[in-house]
Amino acid sequence: MKILGLIIEYNPFHNGHQYHLKQALNLINPDVTIGILSGNFVQRGEPSVFRKQAKVNFSLEAGLDLVLELPLVFSIQDAGGFALGSVWTLDKLKASSLVFGSESNDLKALKKIAFILNESSDKYTKLLKKFLKKGLSFPNSRKEALKVYFESSGFDSEIINKISLSNDILGLEYLKSIFHLKSSINAFSIKRIGKNYHDLNSNSSFSSASAIRNLLKKGDLEKIKKLVPEFAYKIIIDEINNNEGPIFLENLEKTIISIFRMNNLSDFENIYGINEGLDVRFKKIASVSKNLESFLMDVKTKRFTLTRIKRALLSTLIKLEKNSVKKSNIYGPQYIRVLGFNEKGRKYLSYLKKKIDIPVITNLSDWPRIYKKVLNNKYKVNPELFKTQLFYDIKATELYTLFNKEKKLLVGNEYKYNVKYKKT
Amino acid sequence: MKILGLIIEYNPFHNGHQYHLKQALNLINPDVTIGILSGNFVQRGEPSVFRKQAKVNFSLEAGLDLVLELPLVFSIQDAGGFALGSVWTLDKLKASSLVFGSESNDLKALKKIAFILNESSDKYTKLLKKFLKKGLSFPNSRKEALKVYFESSGFDSEIINKISLSNDILGLEYLKSIFHLKSSINAFSIKRIGKNYHDLNSNSSFSSASAIRNLLKKGDLEKIKKLVPEFAYKIIIDEINNNEGPIFLENLEKTIISIFRMNNLSDFENIYGINEGLDVRFKKIASVSKNLESFLMDVKTKRFTLTRIKRALLSTLIKLEKNSVKKSNIYGPQYIRVLGFNEKGRKYLSYLKKKIDIPVITNLSDWPRIYKKVLNNKYKVNPELFKTQLFYDIKATELYTLFNKEKKLLVGNEYKYNVKYKKT
Repeated sequence: MKILGLIIEYNPFHNGHQYHLKQALNLINPDVTIGILSGNFVQRGEPSVFRKQAKVNFSLEAGLDLVLELPLVFSIQDAGGFALGSVWTLDKLKASSLVFGSESNDLKALKKIAFILNESSDKYTKLLKKFLKKGLSFPNSRKEALKVYFESSGFDSEIINKISLSNDILGLEYLKSIFHLKSSINAFSIKRIGKNYHDLNSNSSFSSASAIRNLLKKGDLEKIKKLVPEFAYKIIIDEINNNEGPIFLENLEKTIISIFRMNNLSDFENIYGINEGLDVRFKKIASVSKNLESFLMDVKTKRFTLTRIKRALLSTLIKLEKNSVKKSNIYGPQYIRVLGFNEKGRKYLSYLKKKIDIPVITNLSDWPRIYKKVLNNKYKVNPELFKTQLFYDIKATELYTLFNKEKKLLVGNEYKYNVKYKKT
Repeated sequence: MKILGLIIEYNPFHNGHQYHLKQALNLINPDVTIGILSGNFVQRGEPSVFRKQAKVNFSLEAGLDLVLELPLVFSIQDAGGFALGSVWTLDKLKASSLVFGSESNDLKALKKIAFILNESSDKYTKLLKKFLKKGLSFPNSRKEALKVYFESSGFDSEIINKISLSNDILGLEYLKSIFHLKSSINAFSIKRIGKNYHDLNSNSSFSSASAIRNLLKKGDLEKIKKLVPEFAYKIIIDEINNNEGPIFLENLEKTIISIFRMNNLSDFENIYGINEGLDVRFKKIASVSKNLESFLMDVKTKRFTLTRIKRALLSTLIKLEKNSVKKSNIYGPQYIRVLGFNEKGRKYLSYLKKKIDIPVITNLSDWPRIYKKVLNNKYKVNPELFKTQLFYDIKATELYTLFNKEKKLLVGNEYKYNVKYKKT
């Protein structure tokens, strides 16, 4: 059976996503297509612009058969942890291939670099530390270290310059995770379309999700119409009409500033993403910030990139602990959370359930029953880590619902999420 | 010199306050009148309806000579801690008399009860515990325990029934603190006017501050006009026109719910006011609360009164620690914070500065210089506790400014507060 795995954001779904999906389907011609997506909070350190219900609708309408949620403990990690959690889940789901978008589309080069990064030879590690010490950000340090490493090893260091863009960096991490997990997943890349991904003024029908989010912020729905497929536009309009979104980080501006003003330094001690004095910067700047934007911009340095800051910010809000992240990266996802499927996806899932060594959760209120099985060693799962990962997901929904500007204090009841079944 | 001390709330100032002040001045005919008030957060567990600048204006216009701020570590404690901090400050200021409003106006009875409460004989303490165990709230347990104690000691227990109203209870605590501190302050009571203090529908020109806050919430300024002196009305209108208030707890509804949803039980461990399972109630109810009101109402029990819950709520937001409160109640206020004065007040202050054993802070940005003196043992002050109390006050302003609905994220810079000098 050909099982295609896709790591998707769909934040929101747009024409580029549809193009990529069609290419992937043409390339693999799969029996089943599985998508794994971040739920409430995404890897760029922001709340999802629409709730996960909408993202599941995007996915199923676009033709995916099975949609899973990446646990929060992976979804707001850096690219490495995000990729590890996603690939690990797809590996558990017996995916045979993974297709990802790539600016360079140079799979050979990406694999070579991923191999080195995964091995992390002493020489490379020393180089990396050297550039980090100079105050460069992690991505830039890695780039410079790889260049020197490649040159000194007789490789062409030019390929390093090719992989500075966001999809290539993620692709690199997917490949690294495949190596790390010794997974049998076959990776393929697809050329990312659009010269300038972030270009808003283009007349093309392709635009980045980030540009579309900006249009959503401005309420410029007309412009969005030509940038997303018709079915996606309908879902977006429905969400807006039902006052479900769009959701932006600044919707909880006062809460965020308040938490950073009131936190003591000791409150940051075990929080994922807080290191190298970021806690001191956060506190100092929060007390004199006039809005969220200036807060983020003032915390930002060459070393602390905006995305890194926003991820640390969300970790602080949710109190995501370093130790939970560390353990999760060692032991992997402790369950598969199913958000939606069509008939094909449902059948694959019931076929798979007997072969998989971690629990599959389709109905969250079922978790105590599943937890009992976990305690009885029915799965290869750590009971404590199972609960830890699950409770972060529940907590994330309790926070996410508060981001809704239009509705008052929504009850953040993750238990009320019903798995979506799309009739064919 | 006759120095009159008044413990004032002025939240906001109204005709009842003016009447009380006139009576107190007639009674004492003081050389100097000192008022001590809560700054950002008041004893009922709420943000002050107007910022302290406005409350200082109320006080100086009403005729007070010197206005001081009660440190936060006392201002959001229960009646006992609030009274202790206030009386202790007035004692440091060499006040010779204290006048307070009282529903019963039975000073003799109040003194008798205060004496017993201060002694807290074993017999009384046992009785108190018995009623607390039955699930009664602290005020009710105290009342029942005192009744039994009085009866069994041959006193008339009827006087206990007289002191169930809020001003009597506070008065009792003032007297208790005077006994406890062995202070030479002479206490006097004044009959509280108005049959039904909380009556909104009355046509009288007297109304409670609570009723006036409700009118402010509704924006019903016309009704307020006859309930407050002209000068106070002008101050209120100025504050509103400058978008400085009114401030209500629900202005930070989402922040409050978010903090209680995201907090782990361990985060409540050292917080003042959290005990007897209140942390578990808070967390459980926050995740299913649709608004702040239902949150508070659902947490409320016979034992956990609304005021107690709101104080614990504010302590949680500010992270006011049990240990800081405990130490403050042992060692007292570690500084005198001056908010405003007229010429008479200024003169008294400079006369007093040489006689007082704790630092007087008129300009907060001066604190590092004062702290050096503290370290050099120029005062009878604990350096660590001095900083602890001061930093809570600064933190309180950083939070209070976020309650402002009209202005964005105000920079909560307590250092910018300028002491108010009223020319005569």
